Amino acid sequence: MELGVCYYPEQTSEENWTGDVAKIKNLGLEWVRIGEFSWAMCEPHPGQYQFGWLERVIALLKREGMKIILGTPTATPPKWLSDQYPDILASDRDGRVRNFGSRRHYCFSSPRYRQESRRITTEFARRFAHLVDGWQTDNEYGCHDTVLSYSAAAQDGFRIWLGQKYGTIAALNDAWGNQFWSMIYRDFSEIDLPNLTTTEANPSHWLDFHRYSSAQVVDFNLEQVTIIQQNGGRNIGHNYMGFFTDFDHYDVAQALDFVGWDSYPLGFMSKLNFTAAEKIRYARVGHPDIPAFHHELYRQMTAEQRFWVMEQQPGAVNWAAYNPAPAQGMVRLWSWQAFAHGAEVVSYFRFEQYAKAQEQFHHGLFTPERNLAQGGKEASQIASEIKKLGNILPKAQKNTAKIALVFDFPSIWANKIQPQGDSYHTLDIMFRCYSAVRQLGHDLAIIPATADFTQYDVVIAPSLPLVADDLSQKLKNFKGKCLLLPRFASKSQALTIDLKQHREICGFAISTSESLPDGFFDQATIDLKDKNGLAQPQTLQLGIWRDHADPDSLDPAIEILARYRDGGILLSRYGHIFRLMGLPDHEIINKILVTYLGIHDRNYPQDCRATKLGDLVFMQNFSPVSHDLQPLAENAELIMGDLSVAPYSVNIWRLHTPQ
Amino acid sequence: MELGVCYYPEQTSEENWTGDVAKIKNLGLEWVRIGEFSWAMCEPHPGQYQFGWLERVIALLKREGMKIILGTPTATPPKWLSDQYPDILASDRDGRVRNFGSRRHYCFSSPRYRQESRRITTEFARRFAHLVDGWQTDNEYGCHDTVLSYSAAAQDGFRIWLGQKYGTIAALNDAWGNQFWSMIYRDFSEIDLPNLTTTEANPSHWLDFHRYSSAQVVDFNLEQVTIIQQNGGRNIGHNYMGFFTDFDHYDVAQALDFVGWDSYPLGFMSKLNFTAAEKIRYARVGHPDIPAFHHELYRQMTAEQRFWVMEQQPGAVNWAAYNPAPAQGMVRLWSWQAFAHGAEVVSYFRFEQYAKAQEQFHHGLFTPERNLAQGGKEASQIASEIKKLGNILPKAQKNTAKIALVFDFPSIWANKIQPQGDSYHTLDIMFRCYSAVRQLGHDLAIIPATADFTQYDVVIAPSLPLVADDLSQKLKNFKGKCLLLPRFASKSQALTIDLKQHREICGFAISTSESLPDGFFDQATIDLKDKNGLAQPQTLQLGIWRDHADPDSLDPAIEILARYRDGGILLSRYGHIFRLMGLPDHEIINKILVTYLGIHDRNYPQDCRATKLGDLVFMQNFSPVSHDLQPLAENAELIMGDLSVAPYSVNIWRLHTPQ
Amino acid sequence: MELGVCYYPEQTSEENWTGDVAKIKNLGLEWVRIGEFSWAMCEPHPGQYQFGWLERVIALLKREGMKIILGTPTATPPKWLSDQYPDILASDRDGRVRNFGSRRHYCFSSPRYRQESRRITTEFARRFAHLVDGWQTDNEYGCHDTVLSYSAAAQDGFRIWLGQKYGTIAALNDAWGNQFWSMIYRDFSEIDLPNLTTTEANPSHWLDFHRYSSAQVVDFNLEQVTIIQQNGGRNIGHNYMGFFTDFDHYDVAQALDFVGWDSYPLGFMSKLNFTAAEKIRYARVGHPDIPAFHHELYRQMTAEQRFWVMEQQPGAVNWAAYNPAPAQGMVRLWSWQAFAHGAEVVSYFRFEQYAKAQEQFHHGLFTPERNLAQGGKEASQIASEIKKLGNILPKAQKNTAKIALVFDFPSIWANKIQPQGDSYHTLDIMFRCYSAVRQLGHDLAIIPATADFTQYDVVIAPSLPLVADDLSQKLKNFKGKCLLLPRFASKSQALTIDLKQHREICGFAISTSESLPDGFFDQATIDLKDKNGLAQPQTLQLGIWRDHADPDSLDPAIEILARYRDGGILLSRYGHIFRLMGLPDHEIINKILVTYLGIHDRNYPQDCRATKLGDLVFMQNFSPVSHDLQPLAENAELIMGDLSVAPYSVNIWRLHTPQ
Repeated sequence: MELGVCYYPEQTSEENWTGDVAKIKNLGLEWVRIGEFSWAMCEPHPGQYQFGWLERVIALLKREGMKIILGTPTATPPKWLSDQYPDILASDRDGRVRNFGSRRHYCFSSPRYRQESRRITTEFARRFAHLVDGWQTDNEYGCHDTVLSYSAAAQDGFRIWLGQKYGTIAALNDAWGNQFWSMIYRDFSEIDLPNLTTTEANPSHWLDFHRYSSAQVVDFNLEQVTIIQQNGGRNIGHNYMGFFTDFDHYDVAQALDFVGWDSYPLGFMSKLNFTAAEKIRYARVGHPDIPAFHHELYRQMTAEQRFWVMEQQPGAVNWAAYNPAPAQGMVRLWSWQAFAHGAEVVSYFRFEQYAKAQEQFHHGLFTPERNLAQGGKEASQIASEIKKLGNILPKAQKNTAKIALVFDFPSIWANKIQPQGDSYHTLDIMFRCYSAVRQLGHDLAIIPATADFTQYDVVIAPSLPLVADDLSQKLKNFKGKCLLLPRFASKSQALTIDLKQHREICGFAISTSESLPDGFFDQATIDLKDKNGLAQPQTLQLGIWRDHADPDSLDPAIEILARYRDGGILLSRYGHIFRLMGLPDHEIINKILVTYLGIHDRNYPQDCRATKLGDLVFMQNFSPVSHDLQPLAENAELIMGDLSVAPYSVNIWRLHTPQ
Repeated sequence: MELGVCYYPEQTSEENWTGDVAKIKNLGLEWVRIGEFSWAMCEPHPGQYQFGWLERVIALLKREGMKIILGTPTATPPKWLSDQYPDILASDRDGRVRNFGSRRHYCFSSPRYRQESRRITTEFARRFAHLVDGWQTDNEYGCHDTVLSYSAAAQDGFRIWLGQKYGTIAALNDAWGNQFWSMIYRDFSEIDLPNLTTTEANPSHWLDFHRYSSAQVVDFNLEQVTIIQQNGGRNIGHNYMGFFTDFDHYDVAQALDFVGWDSYPLGFMSKLNFTAAEKIRYARVGHPDIPAFHHELYRQMTAEQRFWVMEQQPGAVNWAAYNPAPAQGMVRLWSWQAFAHGAEVVSYFRFEQYAKAQEQFHHGLFTPERNLAQGGKEASQIASEIKKLGNILPKAQKNTAKIALVFDFPSIWANKIQPQGDSYHTLDIMFRCYSAVRQLGHDLAIIPATADFTQYDVVIAPSLPLVADDLSQKLKNFKGKCLLLPRFASKSQALTIDLKQHREICGFAISTSESLPDGFFDQATIDLKDKNGLAQPQTLQLGIWRDHADPDSLDPAIEILARYRDGGILLSRYGHIFRLMGLPDHEIINKILVTYLGIHDRNYPQDCRATKLGDLVFMQNFSPVSHDLQPLAENAELIMGDLSVAPYSVNIWRLHTPQ
Repeated sequence: MELGVCYYPEQTSEENWTGDVAKIKNLGLEWVRIGEFSWAMCEPHPGQYQFGWLERVIALLKREGMKIILGTPTATPPKWLSDQYPDILASDRDGRVRNFGSRRHYCFSSPRYRQESRRITTEFARRFAHLVDGWQTDNEYGCHDTVLSYSAAAQDGFRIWLGQKYGTIAALNDAWGNQFWSMIYRDFSEIDLPNLTTTEANPSHWLDFHRYSSAQVVDFNLEQVTIIQQNGGRNIGHNYMGFFTDFDHYDVAQALDFVGWDSYPLGFMSKLNFTAAEKIRYARVGHPDIPAFHHELYRQMTAEQRFWVMEQQPGAVNWAAYNPAPAQGMVRLWSWQAFAHGAEVVSYFRFEQYAKAQEQFHHGLFTPERNLAQGGKEASQIASEIKKLGNILPKAQKNTAKIALVFDFPSIWANKIQPQGDSYHTLDIMFRCYSAVRQLGHDLAIIPATADFTQYDVVIAPSLPLVADDLSQKLKNFKGKCLLLPRFASKSQALTIDLKQHREICGFAISTSESLPDGFFDQATIDLKDKNGLAQPQTLQLGIWRDHADPDSLDPAIEILARYRDGGILLSRYGHIFRLMGLPDHEIINKILVTYLGIHDRNYPQDCRATKLGDLVFMQNFSPVSHDLQPLAENAELIMGDLSVAPYSVNIWRLHTPQ
């Protein structure tokens, strides 16, 4: 558990550097991230490198005992580069070039930009690989919707990629169903990008374009990693930005030693379907499970489960529709929460609030005048607390939860391509399921569809239309219980209808999937356990989406656990497979998990969370009132904080008999 | 009364054909529509025709005794065609080319595409005109907003068309009022399309562009009809899509033997201003009057009143913002409703739910695995019922209603060009007036402004800003009663203000037309008959729009029947002309019709409808509860169903003394 | 106090002219505005002038004793001009050319259009400068969002302008902070316009583009003024359109003898954040303070405070989302209100409602058939009233208010570039503060940041992020009281953070500025005077925005007058400087002004307003009920109207001992 900060020496006068580094050190931080936006300062004219300043900064940091993460600067190619080679620029869905003037203006498909990326990465790696303690490739792949580019380079690359995937154009026509609407192609060279069509393009066309575009990010990243490694670099990661899911984060992570993510809990409130009351309740706190959801998502990306918070929000920021300031204590609570979920390092973005350019309203640990800001004070407190706890704190620890939730990027793309109902929001449904388990007091893992399920008692698939053959087999053989929600196994890998898999896994086929208008609800009755553990019939309202079973397809072994008022199936059981046909709200999902999947409710107060890490339990209070908080274990010892946890604070317990 | 289905043999393996046709036949269907999206399969390379598969399908169908509608395939030109001739593509209002990759990507103005359309139609007609039982030209003209194209071809064509219409540029400048804002043109070649102007273009410019664009659709269709006829084809129709009004459906229909329309009642719920409560009430049923409104609109398009439902929704579909599944029984009820309104054939779209491409979520009579779906079961039931009733059922019958509603495409364009108020929704107002009469229990016809009015007792014009001279004369000479609503006769044919016509027809001139903000209402008092037929003063709230009379223009013969609280006229009478100056909701329009226009309320239950066809009356129950339903006639005999009609069902009565 | 009308002889047959001018004269109007859209009629072919018609009109008007304002016709260049020189056209933010077909399609940056503007202005000025009584340059600069053009000409001009401003590219890079995100430029020729970047461009880049664009309008206008003056023209003005703030109206006004503005109170209701209840209450009246706010804004634009209402709404119009008709009496009330606020002339737009082209729904003083309309009747009444009052009425009089509100165009641009919160609406906050004072019964001035403050007792700055050095000094030296609201002095002139100025003026620095989600409120308690003048603690809800003080920065002289519940400062006092940290609604701003800034509440009824002009007081009733209204002065004498003022009417009092 270490702390760090993102620092931009190129944005200030060199005379400030010594004082700045002293400030960082005095706060108790150990890591500094530098360099990821510095291309124009390192190469002010084509081929004329000026690395002196960076060498001096690195020397100073090392002298002061800091550890360094160095970023490749490819997220911000200089003006002269796009002027010289306009073909490096991306194009948006309307076909317009996305110009220089901000960042991330490059196209992953541009062969020229690939070459330039390799060149500058080589320059960085050759000079600094032996000096720094880790690397970040580029910055926030996908941010500002930059995965899908509709450029000529993307069109060329897509055609080649399709040729390699399908071999013959007949195979592609068949896979996509191009006899529909006379969309038959005679050659791969006839295939355009799926934008700017008269009405919607073929969903299989879109899904392949998503797969292709994701593969470009993977390749782009791999090229940089390879160069860094070839030059002796180690400890290579990337900082993912929350809620940009247009590329497969798992695939990119294959090449990485660790993954980072950038945690901005308040801004992320606008990315999910929170109610008006939730938006107000969590305006200065963020929903408690937003950071945890991402921690667990990114924790599982490398085999060693090494992840960082590469950028931690240190105060109010600049980019959301509304930008409140975090409640006092939240920066510390978010940091401890990250460590509780296994983060190796929490690094604050950024050293000082920068007085100029696009992110002026983004706070730092220090003010624009380099005075200590609220975020800095809280960071300093955490540094002291870590020091005090010393060896009691484990190094980052793997997730030992017995409950897992399946997260699948191609399934998200599939739902985006075929929304079928305006109110269906894949990430929101994922999040609601995650939060339901967390509110019961349990840890859970977020895992890819390719993961090994054997270590889990319960696996939940909130939205998984695409089910590969091996997953299908794995689900059938699974020894624990599975809860599967609407859209499960509805499509083939080519994004065409597949009824067979669902029938095999769930014991019946789907006849109809309905999306329901806002405000429209079907009623259902279900037995749910109350606080005393007694099952009581309860009436539900269910909207947004409903799957219907084909009544002629029911396997005799199917058990119907609950029905809609109109007689349709709400919840079925087929051995260890529980299939939910509608979308109850998260408080009902809680109770279904308790009643049917054997998860017990630990009954912590609202907005309080328990997170286990090795033999420690972190009790977190995201509510505006104090709560007495302890883990539900006999031999727990309080090692930080008080039993009564103040608002936006945390205590830590050590279990002497691990739960 | 016959049933049919749309079938796509080119989208399945040939080995399935025999089984598929047997399934269709076993359901009791008589018609099969084929071929309308098959261009790429019939001409896989330029000029290399492959009609063998189509010949085999047709032979199979004829062998099995099926009747065939063959579609010309021009809605989906192949990729090689738009690659070879990019000038066939349309452009959108932003000037962007609408590319290949879905359908309807052609520009009606493209001389090259006209030539290609004639060529492929000739190929189809030469081969198949003597083999099939009817034709469909193209598919759903206007769908995906494809009437107005802003291409270079459209600009060229528009200039020529204007030259022909106006003769001299001075005449055009005068008609459009181009001395306003220095918009004077010196030559027809200076006139651009009205899109991409700095602020709104001249409304006369827009209306002429609408007229021009509509004329291209008419010509395009006429060219195909002519070729089919020259090759011996007969029984030629087109399938209109509901709610795409950018071309004049009446004008296109001039060339047709019958018209079809595509009925998707649930998706159409999003096209009108339904209240939140209505959207929920009708989510799985559709508003009862949406299909009827279209049946009557299309019924009147040919002199023989021959119309088909070319595509009948058979289950949930894919294209609306929300896509619920129809309540059980609705497919049957919609079908019987179509027959009640005079449909010759109801043809379901489509045979099987297709597992691939854009319409995967669109259900069919059969599942993707070719099992019978709910829609198929209901279709089969109707087929049996028709067979059982046999000769009792008339062949399609003309509308004998005594009430008519005027529907005028150029008036819709005029209101779209000059909305003047964001809440004024022409089709919604049309529909509300139609529904008001239906809720009173009466049949009514929907007629063009050019129709003969003499057979009607009451004519209603819900929104008719454009009134041609002959219509004006016809209204003055009309022997029945007319109810005219806001915007009536407010504009000339050139979309300029014309006060004279209104004054002559209604007895006064309009001084001001107001659009009113959402939630703003004026109050008015009017005597309206209650259930006992007693006129009682009632207070109304009126919003959206209000016309004001010029007080100096009132003809002495004007009778003021109701006033706003502020003294303004709400309802006037000038002989047989009733002029309503505001927009009451449909329940008040009901009562105005009862009180002032002599229509009596038959008092059927909510969401129940009676439709007369020859000597039959169809009593339809669109509500979720059973109702005893019979026509208001002494000598009615129940010939199908029970007196108590189940939810989403229908019974049929025969009148021995026709009402 | 004189009345006028906008008249378009080129849009009617010459035979109507004599009658039209007689009608104008008979109404009692003295001024006629002509010519501003007449380019195509004056120069039908390149270089072929046809001024005969305009000469005849001018002769006729002079013969009849009318005074004439002649407009330069540059807002509507003819079709042949943009065909010949397409480079005169502007481009929108998406990079699309804004074409001919409406108006204002020119680009201020186009050297070619500048030349054409000078040419046609010279032709007008040479011929008519000695004949007319005043001039209007162009028409409504900025209307239809036409200040910012993204054309090649604008890019060229911007680069040159930046070169002149910054001298060296290093200076620009430093001012903008271009080391951020590697945005360093090597030469001015590398700088593009800030649109179409991948994510948001540098705010300093944007602000300079706004300053550049505004400067083009200033230069464009100055060129015309200079030419008119060189040809002997005098009395030169421009008609500003309300709510188009993309250029600095003060800077343009430097060249003008008087300013005009175009007053459309009902349409303007959509430009501010009115509540649903306010939108309904004021649908046919307009908020009482919308016209007054503009009168005072434009009154202060020339040293002599000469302003006109160049276009007064005479009835319902055509361009808003909803276009109700003004309540009877409103045209007269608006006119008297304008005179009360010092207008020299009120000129109605337009003579007749024009039956053709874009503004058909825009009413005039006369109907399309040239009968007197409601607006004409009310204009005629005002003309009689003015005549009757005769010498009692002063010539336009300067504002003598003791309260002022600061209005700053660059600050509006800065907030638009960095909204930081979706609910923050600069003009709405400006307006609410203005209205708060008006509701207390006081006059107030709206002044530029560069104005002399010494004549005021109270100065309010509702939204002033940009504070130039001299303003800073002026505020410090001010002898009255200042109320400063959120965002005050937060940025430098380059739109970068500046903490120093705020600390010096307000006695503390800002640590954080928060934007708050809709519906989120912080609570605060403040002592506010009640009706009896007793201070009582009152609880407030504050949303939208909140500034926080840096607690380490507080000057000992700071007095905290009110705090948020959480302890944060709500209202502070630092000598004469009152700083409000949140945004209360206008009724609370009223009470803060009363309690802390010494403004007393004159307690007039809701929607009644008092306006003082010299020794006259105009009591205006914008409410739907009658009120007894008199100024709060002992020796007031009623000189027009009754004590009881009818709805939408006015009375006038003369003070014998000036207040």
